[in-house]
Amino acid sequence: MNTLAVTGGQVLFPDHSVAEADILINTDAGTIEEVGSNGELAGTADDHLDAAGGLVIPGLVNAHTHVAMTLFRGAADDKPLDAWLQEDIWPVEAELTGEDVRAGARLGIAEMIRSGTTAIADMYFFMPEVAAVVEEACIRARLGHGCITVGKDEEAAHEDFEAGLEFAKEHNDTANGRVKTLFTPHSLTTVDRQFYEEYIPEAHDAGIPVHIHANETTQEVEPLVDEYGKRPLEYADDLGILTEETFLAHGVHVDETERELLAERGTSVVHCPASNMKLASGMAPIQKLHDAGVTVALGTDGAGSNNDLDMFDEMRDAAMIGKLAENDASAVPADAVLEMATKAGAETLGFDSGRIEEGANADLAVLDLDSLHLTPQHDLVSHLVYAARGSDVRHTVCDGQVLMEDRELTTLSADDVMAEGSKHATELFARAE
Amino acid sequence: MNTLAVTGGQVLFPDHSVAEADILINTDAGTIEEVGSNGELAGTADDHLDAAGGLVIPGLVNAHTHVAMTLFRGAADDKPLDAWLQEDIWPVEAELTGEDVRAGARLGIAEMIRSGTTAIADMYFFMPEVAAVVEEACIRARLGHGCITVGKDEEAAHEDFEAGLEFAKEHNDTANGRVKTLFTPHSLTTVDRQFYEEYIPEAHDAGIPVHIHANETTQEVEPLVDEYGKRPLEYADDLGILTEETFLAHGVHVDETERELLAERGTSVVHCPASNMKLASGMAPIQKLHDAGVTVALGTDGAGSNNDLDMFDEMRDAAMIGKLAENDASAVPADAVLEMATKAGAETLGFDSGRIEEGANADLAVLDLDSLHLTPQHDLVSHLVYAARGSDVRHTVCDGQVLMEDRELTTLSADDVMAEGSKHATELFARAE
Repeated sequence: MNTLAVTGGQVLFPDHSVAEADILINTDAGTIEEVGSNGELAGTADDHLDAAGGLVIPGLVNAHTHVAMTLFRGAADDKPLDAWLQEDIWPVEAELTGEDVRAGARLGIAEMIRSGTTAIADMYFFMPEVAAVVEEACIRARLGHGCITVGKDEEAAHEDFEAGLEFAKEHNDTANGRVKTLFTPHSLTTVDRQFYEEYIPEAHDAGIPVHIHANETTQEVEPLVDEYGKRPLEYADDLGILTEETFLAHGVHVDETERELLAERGTSVVHCPASNMKLASGMAPIQKLHDAGVTVALGTDGAGSNNDLDMFDEMRDAAMIGKLAENDASAVPADAVLEMATKAGAETLGFDSGRIEEGANADLAVLDLDSLHLTPQHDLVSHLVYAARGSDVRHTVCDGQVLMEDRELTTLSADDVMAEGSKHATELFARAE
Repeated sequence: MNTLAVTGGQVLFPDHSVAEADILINTDAGTIEEVGSNGELAGTADDHLDAAGGLVIPGLVNAHTHVAMTLFRGAADDKPLDAWLQEDIWPVEAELTGEDVRAGARLGIAEMIRSGTTAIADMYFFMPEVAAVVEEACIRARLGHGCITVGKDEEAAHEDFEAGLEFAKEHNDTANGRVKTLFTPHSLTTVDRQFYEEYIPEAHDAGIPVHIHANETTQEVEPLVDEYGKRPLEYADDLGILTEETFLAHGVHVDETERELLAERGTSVVHCPASNMKLASGMAPIQKLHDAGVTVALGTDGAGSNNDLDMFDEMRDAAMIGKLAENDASAVPADAVLEMATKAGAETLGFDSGRIEEGANADLAVLDLDSLHLTPQHDLVSHLVYAARGSDVRHTVCDGQVLMEDRELTTLSADDVMAEGSKHATELFARAE
């Protein structure tokens, strides 16, 4: 057994207590072998990672993103969702190539490693390219090809759905188990009912979890209520979408009936607070979802509507907007938010990570605590949610491999990734003009 | 004339256009002597600051804070304003000493220099201590002793107001003009009417601008409406508070009549989006204030309710919550937010800064653009508001003096400030138990 010891730091335990401890990682298995404070772990390890003056936390889980959309960062802001998609995003996406997606994925994944994220759920196009980058970068991911029927004839729509299923079947459990897949119809209003009826059973049969956008804006709710006389998630339930493996992005406009339905079915929601604010979609009722017993994870959405992929920003946003939504400053407290970004995220994605514990995947980040904006230290959980930022992350480890040491990436070259990302963004937007 | 040249970077101009340019600073006067792109400025200067690969922006203006409250960072979160003040903040503030305030001010001002802020408005206690730190750190500030009458007998209340006026008169235009003062009654509901009637004319006579908390929560609105049958800002206007020099913190619950009144009087509002979210105070109608012609600046409020003093966070929050408040993704766009944090902030505080222009104060920050989360660069104004963070600031200059070079503070020692801040926070909270 080859081992790596993370030594000298404080550790955030699954119950959110913090204590000094060393961590011994089995780098062959990619798992945490032992967590202890007797000082003996360091001596036995093959390699060492210095966590002195730092706080070891689980690698953060970004449970909804479109990582290649880093190429769109800052290209079109301050516009409503519909206009933004139709005028700015879709025309450029029509010009996307696999090479663009690879460059965008490298840029986004590098940014996430630098800010302590080790696992993501991604829905986009040219997904074999994204899978290749996930493998290269050595993070953990659930990936799905986004399928859509609006604007397509029936044959093209079928091709799209077949491609989605094929990708999901082919790439599941690849990259040493770090890549798992998803079946990802875009949303309840952008996919015709007949395609849900045909393909959802196929996805279930193949054991592929379903991930869709749901109830993001009121415009996604009203047409379904008008057509079927039901709330969108009741409609989704009729189609067999709501299972324990399924997770829904956004869930902004979910009423009490829908919250109870989600709890009953064991279906999770991925909260994307920054995107919901920036696109003025609304405020998701996160405290009410928690109260109903629904598992809520956290996601950045794409960089086009955020505009960064920093899960520390997202935690802060979730705590902030959670209070506004309830008109109650005690709603969605720091503890609950930290859980969303770690354990709940990992559970939602079906990964055995999101916690520093013997036997779990060795996915973690080490934060520098020695900085002005984290002084004094009354409460480190508060600091993680309200004051820390991605740039405080010193080391990132996934699957027992060191992906960043002392702010230097090991699996990707930041300089190459930035140069390649800039080039592809420039050329892509030039083609779309 | 001694000079400093900031060379090799791009410059954000007052109209928010960006172009390569060098800046020549007259370090004796603390002003910008010349802005040019002919490459000659560098040769003539006594000193140089390397801005290659960077973007030079005006030093940010934090127009409402309680800087010494950095000692409270993370000590009490997730509680409503009233309970937070009464259970957590006031009992500890009762134990505050001048030395605590000095330590907290050093910590907060160091954090702000590290994140590109060069001017602040501060309202708190032991203000001569804060003034001394502002002078030592070499930033620019408007300072006021917070006066309050609730919980005090009449004699004590008078003493407090006399102290507030005395501080304002004694310290105005000190520290080479970098310290100016304010008269700062706490709020419309925590100060008895008779004290406004007595002291506001005195402040006006002494030429000291007034800064108060106003319309932060509905609990501050209702009692005044009940007692006087008027909106709070109509009541404030009756008391002669609303002038062109006055600025109000928060302004969350201001109705159309009040917005028009503010515009008519030329009174500014300081928006504090993070604090308003964290304390669930509500969403200030920033787009409507802009539309009415009211000048809106931006502030972090204290670290107890934020929990950092990073104006980049605050810009992002302002853009985000501004859209939610209007249910319109085009509301409060990046351009407007950048203006709030620079030009509008400087105007509100009465400083000749907030813009890179010949003759203006040489208050600026240089951001590193060469990073993953700022790639690609479709739009640098978008990046400043939505993607940049305080840790991207490489150099900070105020009054022509370099306060941070390559992330190293020059006027304060970060290590000493952190050690001193931790010690005072620990001892203060121990005393209050």
